[in-house]
Amino acid sequence: MTIADPRTARRRAGFVPAAPTTGRLRPLGLDEVHITGGFWAQRQSVNHRHTLAHIGHWLEREGWLPNFDRAAAGSLPEGRRGREFSDSEVYKYLEALAWEIGRTGDDALEATFRAAVDRVARAQEPDGYLNTNFGRPGQAPRWSDLEWGHELYCLGHLFQAAVARGRTRPDADDGLLAVACRAADLVCAVFGPDGVQGVCGHPEIEVGLAELARLTGEPRYLRQAELFVARRGTGTLRPIEWGQQYFQDDVPVRRATVLRGHAVRANYLAAGAVDVAVDTGDEELLAALATQWDNTVARRTYITGGQGSHHQDEAFGEDWVLPPDRAYSETCAAIASIMFSWRLSLARGDTRYGDLIERTLYNVVATSPSAGGTAFYYANTLHQRTPGTVPDPDTASLRAESSLRAPWFGVSCCPPNVARTFASLDALVATTDPQGVQVHQFATCEIRTRLDSGEVVALDVETDYPRSGSVRVTARRDAVDPWTLSIRVPAWAGGARLVVHDAAGDVSTESAAPGWVTVRRAFRAGDVVELVLPMRPRLTHPDPRIDAVRGSVAVERGPEVCCLESVDLDRASHGTVTDVADVRIDTAAGVDDQDGRPLVRLVAAPGAGRDRPWPYAERPLEPAPSVSFDVPLIPYHEWAERGPSTMRVWLPVATPPVTADTTDDQGSAQS
Amino acid sequence: MTIADPRTARRRAGFVPAAPTTGRLRPLGLDEVHITGGFWAQRQSVNHRHTLAHIGHWLEREGWLPNFDRAAAGSLPEGRRGREFSDSEVYKYLEALAWEIGRTGDDALEATFRAAVDRVARAQEPDGYLNTNFGRPGQAPRWSDLEWGHELYCLGHLFQAAVARGRTRPDADDGLLAVACRAADLVCAVFGPDGVQGVCGHPEIEVGLAELARLTGEPRYLRQAELFVARRGTGTLRPIEWGQQYFQDDVPVRRATVLRGHAVRANYLAAGAVDVAVDTGDEELLAALATQWDNTVARRTYITGGQGSHHQDEAFGEDWVLPPDRAYSETCAAIASIMFSWRLSLARGDTRYGDLIERTLYNVVATSPSAGGTAFYYANTLHQRTPGTVPDPDTASLRAESSLRAPWFGVSCCPPNVARTFASLDALVATTDPQGVQVHQFATCEIRTRLDSGEVVALDVETDYPRSGSVRVTARRDAVDPWTLSIRVPAWAGGARLVVHDAAGDVSTESAAPGWVTVRRAFRAGDVVELVLPMRPRLTHPDPRIDAVRGSVAVERGPEVCCLESVDLDRASHGTVTDVADVRIDTAAGVDDQDGRPLVRLVAAPGAGRDRPWPYAERPLEPAPSVSFDVPLIPYHEWAERGPSTMRVWLPVATPPVTADTTDDQGSAQS
Repeated sequence: MTIADPRTARRRAGFVPAAPTTGRLRPLGLDEVHITGGFWAQRQSVNHRHTLAHIGHWLEREGWLPNFDRAAAGSLPEGRRGREFSDSEVYKYLEALAWEIGRTGDDALEATFRAAVDRVARAQEPDGYLNTNFGRPGQAPRWSDLEWGHELYCLGHLFQAAVARGRTRPDADDGLLAVACRAADLVCAVFGPDGVQGVCGHPEIEVGLAELARLTGEPRYLRQAELFVARRGTGTLRPIEWGQQYFQDDVPVRRATVLRGHAVRANYLAAGAVDVAVDTGDEELLAALATQWDNTVARRTYITGGQGSHHQDEAFGEDWVLPPDRAYSETCAAIASIMFSWRLSLARGDTRYGDLIERTLYNVVATSPSAGGTAFYYANTLHQRTPGTVPDPDTASLRAESSLRAPWFGVSCCPPNVARTFASLDALVATTDPQGVQVHQFATCEIRTRLDSGEVVALDVETDYPRSGSVRVTARRDAVDPWTLSIRVPAWAGGARLVVHDAAGDVSTESAAPGWVTVRRAFRAGDVVELVLPMRPRLTHPDPRIDAVRGSVAVERGPEVCCLESVDLDRASHGTVTDVADVRIDTAAGVDDQDGRPLVRLVAAPGAGRDRPWPYAERPLEPAPSVSFDVPLIPYHEWAERGPSTMRVWLPVATPPVTADTTDDQGSAQS
Repeated sequence: MTIADPRTARRRAGFVPAAPTTGRLRPLGLDEVHITGGFWAQRQSVNHRHTLAHIGHWLEREGWLPNFDRAAAGSLPEGRRGREFSDSEVYKYLEALAWEIGRTGDDALEATFRAAVDRVARAQEPDGYLNTNFGRPGQAPRWSDLEWGHELYCLGHLFQAAVARGRTRPDADDGLLAVACRAADLVCAVFGPDGVQGVCGHPEIEVGLAELARLTGEPRYLRQAELFVARRGTGTLRPIEWGQQYFQDDVPVRRATVLRGHAVRANYLAAGAVDVAVDTGDEELLAALATQWDNTVARRTYITGGQGSHHQDEAFGEDWVLPPDRAYSETCAAIASIMFSWRLSLARGDTRYGDLIERTLYNVVATSPSAGGTAFYYANTLHQRTPGTVPDPDTASLRAESSLRAPWFGVSCCPPNVARTFASLDALVATTDPQGVQVHQFATCEIRTRLDSGEVVALDVETDYPRSGSVRVTARRDAVDPWTLSIRVPAWAGGARLVVHDAAGDVSTESAAPGWVTVRRAFRAGDVVELVLPMRPRLTHPDPRIDAVRGSVAVERGPEVCCLESVDLDRASHGTVTDVADVRIDTAAGVDDQDGRPLVRLVAAPGAGRDRPWPYAERPLEPAPSVSFDVPLIPYHEWAERGPSTMRVWLPVATPPVTADTTDDQGSAQS
């Protein structure tokens, strides 16, 4: 295991959050890919216009940014507000601003960014230490609570913010990068090989240090990240009630076989460990992480891509423990999972990583924020049993667990995490390798890059995916030499086709199996490569070991997981059935597509839901359905936008199978 | 609402934990009922011989009893050990000792009890305050943390201990009752009508005060209990992350419709509120509590009788949220539920309360302790997915959540709670009313009492229930006048019969429907009334709204819920199937009885449990079974006694139904 010499190994890094020095694929950044329309452009626009200002407002109002002013004024700990990790929300906000400025060049945001950076910078102590919650008289000493103090965690987010800024505005004089490097130097001095043999209770600094090393070329930062990864799992953290697996301190990273414990911690650690593995050439570590990803995806991931089924410790459950009603599926865990998957994707090139990223983006990350961008889900349940309350838009919620989306949280990690993800989303779209360009995610966008061969590539992608399944990639330049365009065909997309309309007017069609579909040619301006994905809604069955959804199916359409919301049920049944608990899906009726929405046949026994004194009996208690009706499902990410409702992703299957006689309109509520 | 005058309303109270002044039934105490053999006598013997000494050992070793010595010596807070509520474990231990002394007259226990009481008494402050964790220099002030301090909660257990002693040894000079009354007087002074308008974060003092009022005739104690019940739900406790329902401080007791929040808190509160309702003649409150019981049993109770499905807050989930694998089902919640049910049973006389008590006793309370009585489950999962670890018998566990039973816990409420329940179990067996005697629970025992009419009743009950279903009640005296013997026929016991063998040799048989079956006559010595309960194992289906067990059945036999443990699966399949995740039950094959154990036909597809890269698919993933075998189930309370294992109560049903062809021995692992 050797540390790659950054002077030789470092590759050109664009405006990207992750710039590994080695790996199969090189990511294209915000300087090379511009999302210009469609689903994600809309999300980015809301993020730009509403979410960033919303976050800035709450950071002021809750005192989390003013904490830095108090630190600079020397008045702390008096008046400090927020949890021990509140500094990190400011850093994630800075990171989001940095990407958004890089993406859009917005001058107003630039001013906002600089003002916030100034306040942070003034709080830094002369030796580089930066945290508003530790080290002053009246506060706990620095590094005195590695289990829960989050000091290194906060710095990890500082480093990511500085990297975002350093990559997008390398010549800026705002000073954030210098602040980060001073803090990183201190971390290396305190926690280096001969220093404190500890790790942070919440991983994150690993990924921050690795990226800072990539940006600055400073090998000590990478070495420190490597040290933190190597120390993890050796039991340096004091045991807690939920066991050392909560911190991933139970098993060394390279010996673990699956993600476990706190789901955000687990994924941030895994992402940082991939960074270390690829930058140090540690194939064993990389292989261990790939195995962890495989097992976690095979056994511990919700159909939405969400991870973490315990509320108690925000943690992964055991294999197959994936209850929809108590799904925790924290928004931040989804974002951390995307970070992990993307790094493996760059290292290994397999489309499965992009499949999970897509699933997680559409079904968790897109679910958290409201359409308006100023309210959020912290956890993302797959089954809402009772209509939630409507949160006060002016009050921070605890977790929004039994309400509609809330404006802010006491622990408000998710809103700025969503903001930085949307602001840097263009960087998940495409990569290059020596053969050409790979399209990972489908969005209307412009791709402009130069291949290693020197070939300049200009591609425009047009699609209204996921509304329809056509993704048209148009070459805008004549190529000098042949190169390969690769497009990810998702695993769900059996029956996809690739249609090549060349500039000369010829059209060829081939089937496109899941994986990479490739076209190699000397592209001519006007050549169009069109991937046609089958968007008909489909029924999806769970592995029978996921006991919590036995006898149920989900409906998916393209990358979107769908759900039944009581609003639609009420309408379709003309008020005879109002609760999603009371229906079964007639799978024999199939799933229709109604203007891009799945339409399913449901059956119910109105009034059969009366309680029995004891809910267990010698005879099956399943009520015989007496009415049937067709109900449209909505994409899961759209739920809870029409007021309090009940909702479920997994629909119990009518059993015994409904026969034609019982589903005709005679017994239907529609008749 | 008036306070009943205890001078007129108080009834004769025997050695009973609950002595309501009004109500349909009067409980017979340990002085009137002696369990002499069978299932519960065995449990009581283990409790007497092993558990009580085990608890005493750990209370010394963990410093929880020595905390009182430090208090008396004036050296606290230095050296204080244990959680803020550790005093209560000492009090529950005292209560268990008091009942056991009352039950057995054991001189060695009497000496142990007196020595412990002396140490507690010396710690009491001159004004009656008694708590080792508050009020001294260096400790938080008295009553400064009503949410979490547990001071009143601890006193509630002190009062229950004093009542146990006062009822069983009314003339003893140990001083415990005086200690309790001094503390109760202080509580009334501090929290009375014009005092602190607060309640304890953990209900329990209500039931303690009510019983102390009954024992002493002091109306202030009852009035204080009534005040605490009336204040609950008015939001006097500061909100916490899990909401005020955690403390039952969200809704006034008389307005609530179901138990919610922390399951132990909810049931202790409900038990105390019944005490207040019946002693003050508050029919509205009593009716509200009965409704809460109905709804909780209909929608929020596990088949075992266990309550509480959240690990996070040890709380009830929403209606129908009853996951078997993350069942919390805390042992103490079961005991608290029995306290609530028993009080409603006495007030209202309905057999449904006894049904739930029986279910909970056999399937939660009996499950917690090991056969040896020196290790315990704190939570009682209904599905163990991975074999648990073997705890060190010399180390306190956190919760024994992923291990076999543990010797002790950091929060060790359950062991002494089990001990006091077993020691006072005789008091749950029978009651009287003006018409006669009611037998609620089936145990070999002697019942000796005097009816209100003056009639002296002597009954001997013989049964090896639940091994068999015959319960023989033999009259041992000739009656002067006719009186009524009532026996509870459990709701599960469709087809029960009552056989009366009279002393003259005549035999009559009648069917006995669930509810009370009665025989009214002038009993002659030698008359035998035999209840014959159908003990054939039966399949039980869940309400379909309990999504977590959809498509599964449980097997019950008599009052016992059964389970499949991997040890038996491994043997029966000759090692071809070792994990309870891999089998389905062939319900068409029925359930046989093999020497009192259910024998079920299981099917499996060995090797089919391999992972797929993604556990959701367009086609059903249920493997087609290729082998079948018959496996004995064990009573759930016997599980985890044969080393680490996997276990499940709910067995997924083979689907589609297995046909005769696929289940014959051709494909069987037994062939």
